[in-house]
Amino acid sequence: MDEFEIIDRFFSAPQRKRRDVRLGIGDDAAITRIPAGFDLVIATDSLVEGTHFLPGTPAHALGHRCLAVNLSDLAAMGAKPLWCTLALSLPDADVDWVQRFSAGFFALADRFGIALIGGDTVRGPLSVTVTVHGQVQAGSGVCRSGANVGDLVYVTGSPGSAAAGLDLLRASGDQIDVESDLVRSFWYPEPRVIEGMALNNLAQSTATSVTASAMIDISDGLHIDVSRLLGASDLGAELALDALPGFQADSALTVEQILFGGDDYELCFCVPPAAEAAFKKIVADWHCPVTKLGVARKDVVVSWLINGTPYDGNDSTFVHFE
Amino acid sequence: MDEFEIIDRFFSAPQRKRRDVRLGIGDDAAITRIPAGFDLVIATDSLVEGTHFLPGTPAHALGHRCLAVNLSDLAAMGAKPLWCTLALSLPDADVDWVQRFSAGFFALADRFGIALIGGDTVRGPLSVTVTVHGQVQAGSGVCRSGANVGDLVYVTGSPGSAAAGLDLLRASGDQIDVESDLVRSFWYPEPRVIEGMALNNLAQSTATSVTASAMIDISDGLHIDVSRLLGASDLGAELALDALPGFQADSALTVEQILFGGDDYELCFCVPPAAEAAFKKIVADWHCPVTKLGVARKDVVVSWLINGTPYDGNDSTFVHFE
Repeated sequence: MDEFEIIDRFFSAPQRKRRDVRLGIGDDAAITRIPAGFDLVIATDSLVEGTHFLPGTPAHALGHRCLAVNLSDLAAMGAKPLWCTLALSLPDADVDWVQRFSAGFFALADRFGIALIGGDTVRGPLSVTVTVHGQVQAGSGVCRSGANVGDLVYVTGSPGSAAAGLDLLRASGDQIDVESDLVRSFWYPEPRVIEGMALNNLAQSTATSVTASAMIDISDGLHIDVSRLLGASDLGAELALDALPGFQADSALTVEQILFGGDDYELCFCVPPAAEAAFKKIVADWHCPVTKLGVARKDVVVSWLINGTPYDGNDSTFVHFE
Repeated sequence: MDEFEIIDRFFSAPQRKRRDVRLGIGDDAAITRIPAGFDLVIATDSLVEGTHFLPGTPAHALGHRCLAVNLSDLAAMGAKPLWCTLALSLPDADVDWVQRFSAGFFALADRFGIALIGGDTVRGPLSVTVTVHGQVQAGSGVCRSGANVGDLVYVTGSPGSAAAGLDLLRASGDQIDVESDLVRSFWYPEPRVIEGMALNNLAQSTATSVTASAMIDISDGLHIDVSRLLGASDLGAELALDALPGFQADSALTVEQILFGGDDYELCFCVPPAAEAAFKKIVADWHCPVTKLGVARKDVVVSWLINGTPYDGNDSTFVHFE
């Protein structure tokens, strides 16, 4: 395999030009510039075949997903994405596969104006590692810690959908191209970039300003990640399981999927009660559901309520399928 | 495998604090700051077992090597390294292995004061992807292009040593722990960080200032990479093969290893003839050999001379062993 040929062909050409990229792909390294008054935000995540996605996953979906899961980490800090690097390990130089992968990757990158500034394509078992770079106003950025007693706990989207999609894929055997909104949730998670920025005082379409006191993205499952979020501030909560979209009568999700399924890449965050009115104005512009789960309190655990009654499910934690 | 436990244990604790790292490992992303007047330099490289290193490679050596090959890319731009991220795919959670790997990684990181600011440890075939970040004075940075007719062409170290080390390892069968300076060259390449910075007007121990007109690091083999370097400026050269350390009578290297072996991670660069005197002063402080290979000229190829006579070897190009 001539790695340079693949890189040149699919990962160099169709790039949006950014003025903050002085030197892009093609030299030993890239050179970028971050404006004065901003800090740099950096995250990295790998997807490995058989651990994070099923063999036979469409290349276009994988191209989207490997960038989306990283953008979700930036979103959870309230950062604006700027640039990324891509390390792609391929068992063979399947040009059609790479074309579809790059189409999925750049479709998402272009939506947020993100430049691919570095890459390494090597022969090996199928896996992808992306490193993303974003910016926040100097001194800002929403951490996992920072919540206070009385803060309102919210989550975007419909947690459990990706796990339900994965269950459908597993049940489908060789029929990997299952047509389903749930499968799409697993293959094409929507990183909450605009929403995350809005929660770092960067709402685009309103003069209202809100900063979340704490934020995390849901990658390992709603229960474990909301527990991490509140635990980072030594808090807990009783949260309303039946408030979630996945719990409604027309939903196909199980409680297990909602609480312990992973790979949702939704945002879970805390809003000070004094900011609730401003927050509601901002949310009016969002294209995803937002659910108020409850109120942070002095507690060591996160527990769940249905109709105000404790839910007595089996506790378990999500482990990436294997 | 509980990936968080491994990350927490080996990749979070022993870090040197850097004032430009506002938020390190442990949240959804890291937050860093780059001072006004500097640009950011970013490179990423993957090492995959069976493609870039032999099964059985000592974990300590791999920890060093995965960072070294990336630092070499920064060095080739003349950048000062700052921070890195590490994505590690492991077939199983072998704690002893990870301990040795992290020891090799941090031994090198600490030498240059580099902070690990992000990581992802996942289950999968053994591979490592590192992304490194460095800084250069705004508007500076040495590219591959930029050489002019008459520029002097230099290379550091002894190209071919790593390839000779790899050949020894291959010949050794199960005896993977071969004691040899050549094997050490392959396992523990020395990134030319100080030398690269000096060639970007950042010599540390002298008032003399030199900026290379063009630079590359030798990863795929001396011949192909010096051809890339001069080719980026539409130049070529006749270069003195017999000037190289590996060609001397006491050397065990073959011409094939010297010209077409890869993985050396030496710097190859061009110096304007007017800067030769200043360059010689700077080189006096370096701890590695530096060889003047010849002079860039209007040509479409790089050819090699022995005793001033064209070397008529077989042309071939290095492909990572497989």
